[in-house]
Amino acid sequence: MALVNEYFLRLSDNYLFSDIAKKVNAFKLTHPNERVISLGIGDVTQPLCPAVIKAMHEAVDEMATSAQFHGYGPEHGYDFLREAIVKNDYHSRGISISPNEVFINDGAKSDLGNIGDIVRWDNSVAITDPVYPVYIDSNAMIGRAGTCVDGKWSNIIYMPTTEENGFEPQLPEQRVDMIYLCYPNNPTGTVLTKTQLKKWVDYALKNDSLIFFDSAYEAYIHDEDIPHSIYEIRGAKRCAIEFRSYSKTAGFTGIRCGYTVIPKEVKASTLDGQKVELNHLWERRQATKFNGASYISQRGAAAIYSPEGKEQIKQTIDYYMGNAKLMRERLQQLGVIVYGGTNAPYLWVKTPRGLSSWKYFEELLYTSALVCTPGAGFGPSGEGYVRLTAFGKREDCLEAMERLKR
Amino acid sequence: MALVNEYFLRLSDNYLFSDIAKKVNAFKLTHPNERVISLGIGDVTQPLCPAVIKAMHEAVDEMATSAQFHGYGPEHGYDFLREAIVKNDYHSRGISISPNEVFINDGAKSDLGNIGDIVRWDNSVAITDPVYPVYIDSNAMIGRAGTCVDGKWSNIIYMPTTEENGFEPQLPEQRVDMIYLCYPNNPTGTVLTKTQLKKWVDYALKNDSLIFFDSAYEAYIHDEDIPHSIYEIRGAKRCAIEFRSYSKTAGFTGIRCGYTVIPKEVKASTLDGQKVELNHLWERRQATKFNGASYISQRGAAAIYSPEGKEQIKQTIDYYMGNAKLMRERLQQLGVIVYGGTNAPYLWVKTPRGLSSWKYFEELLYTSALVCTPGAGFGPSGEGYVRLTAFGKREDCLEAMERLKR
Repeated sequence: MALVNEYFLRLSDNYLFSDIAKKVNAFKLTHPNERVISLGIGDVTQPLCPAVIKAMHEAVDEMATSAQFHGYGPEHGYDFLREAIVKNDYHSRGISISPNEVFINDGAKSDLGNIGDIVRWDNSVAITDPVYPVYIDSNAMIGRAGTCVDGKWSNIIYMPTTEENGFEPQLPEQRVDMIYLCYPNNPTGTVLTKTQLKKWVDYALKNDSLIFFDSAYEAYIHDEDIPHSIYEIRGAKRCAIEFRSYSKTAGFTGIRCGYTVIPKEVKASTLDGQKVELNHLWERRQATKFNGASYISQRGAAAIYSPEGKEQIKQTIDYYMGNAKLMRERLQQLGVIVYGGTNAPYLWVKTPRGLSSWKYFEELLYTSALVCTPGAGFGPSGEGYVRLTAFGKREDCLEAMERLKR
Repeated sequence: MALVNEYFLRLSDNYLFSDIAKKVNAFKLTHPNERVISLGIGDVTQPLCPAVIKAMHEAVDEMATSAQFHGYGPEHGYDFLREAIVKNDYHSRGISISPNEVFINDGAKSDLGNIGDIVRWDNSVAITDPVYPVYIDSNAMIGRAGTCVDGKWSNIIYMPTTEENGFEPQLPEQRVDMIYLCYPNNPTGTVLTKTQLKKWVDYALKNDSLIFFDSAYEAYIHDEDIPHSIYEIRGAKRCAIEFRSYSKTAGFTGIRCGYTVIPKEVKASTLDGQKVELNHLWERRQATKFNGASYISQRGAAAIYSPEGKEQIKQTIDYYMGNAKLMRERLQQLGVIVYGGTNAPYLWVKTPRGLSSWKYFEELLYTSALVCTPGAGFGPSGEGYVRLTAFGKREDCLEAMERLKR
């Protein structure tokens, strides 16, 4: 019989968000008159901005005419978008990136999940903890994570980011091949300064490691000294792949568009020491397993870089960060310990009275009809915290804080 | 140093279509006054139909309002589309498929390329020859194809489809774990009858093999006894995964939407003989490595199933098949041997005078300014043929045939 990839069977069947959904549904059934407010799932709620809507209508109209119809686009994305990205997201910060180092995708999750295709299955992997589950699960699917015992994978080096270390992960003591970093961080909402991030780039250069840098939330950075791109650090172009998304930057969670930067200098090695450009391998991967993002989505994304688009998405980000500020302040007034929420749309809230994160989840649900995300769902070091997101509506954030006060 | 996936290095760097593009560019530079007509690449040219355009405009408008905004959709696609598919593409043919057996994607190429993730890397693979390169290349990337010597991969069982066997591949003599079939076929344009396809389903059931059935061109079937879906064959729901695409059905090459059907009965085995549902593993894979197709694309796809949509896409398909008929007849009048083109948008043309397919490609280019696709690019058994597509404009097809006559 055809054999299954047994690595898949080592994965937990419990998806964090479906577990939460089940518990919330049970509550709703038994409390039909309560209005549940979700501060849990990290999905946006504000509509797309007018510049994007206009560009997408125009793109749809083009597809209706023979003369302007667009069929297959390039697998790596259209030049109009690649060029807008290098100009606005990189050159504007003094970073030299070429359009052919940018790969447009249908959202960062696909590339974060698939990037492991181009490196060996037995590279060692270091991951901050707590973490976005895709990094671990995608490595588990190819066997790179090893086996899972008591919630920890045998071949993953966990790097706790906790109150004790000020949410700055420690450099691994041993050499590591692949390092996943996400800053501004999901789920903790914390950031690394340039000085802190430089340690990682230096480590990677010294140890010939690769850094997979997820900066999906860079648009939420407010403080001047926080890097938006890992390429703001000298030498990062030799060791880092950067993942960006329009999901949170411009509300594209339903539109599906993002991009990955693989500088030509980033290399990995064959067993006999030959160095290979990962940009080239990824281009080859995408040519076989991807057919480009929707033309309409790419036109929508390009509109974000117009003067109106920039102004409009800033307003929405400010709105969400207004929610974050409001929630952060009210929680602190209640004596709750809160991290994040100043350069990221996430608040990382310490559970009161030493409650476990699932216990506090249930307490918030049953006493206040509020939904959060239990920190333990993001990894062992997430225990004792819950994540709140700032993506809700203002009135819901206010109401949620009122309920907590009561 | 981090190690590269060396299986990628076994792949050829020569992409068929970029090789063609280079040769065509060289011709254009030296013959600036000739108008080149391409009958080569399989991309559509007709605009999207009005029903799709209308639905996509409406979807864009929804995204502009807070009340109707759509964020993250389900990874496996929206129910409105899954339900339209089972009703129109399956129930209408007496095939019982449930919505939760349908996975909406961003085009068949992604799923055809990624489906190998869920089965073991050392399953044996049988592939018809000539063939769409994605099947082989995606298996090569995970090491399943072995090494490539003289254009043939060591672990792939090639099943020639040639004039000699009437383009009906022979069942493999040995047991095979995974079988790729594409009908109506790309590149030969030939089809299998129900009786012929039944042999494959019976073989798969007897040998516990999996069939990956690519029916991206089913909308082009004209004859009554040609199956549109492999599930028209009894027992196929226990052994076959079917891949469908809106690219050629409705001109979605730039919109990116298709779907994959994995019936719950389709299973593969662990090493110790436990049977595992592939539907469940694919759901798990998509939850980690995909975030759903664009809402706008899915709304566009659903509009194809409206009464107007059905009528409108039929007109476009009829237009392309009119091209195919015209080219087929004129070529035959010129004494050229042609296969395909009656139930598929591809014509498989035997080269005259025993020319190699690349030689005939150059002859057509330099004597008539016509671009075709050399059959050898699709595999060893493609030698001696070129592929023409019916996706061009009518006037170009007519002009191309006139040039050939001269």
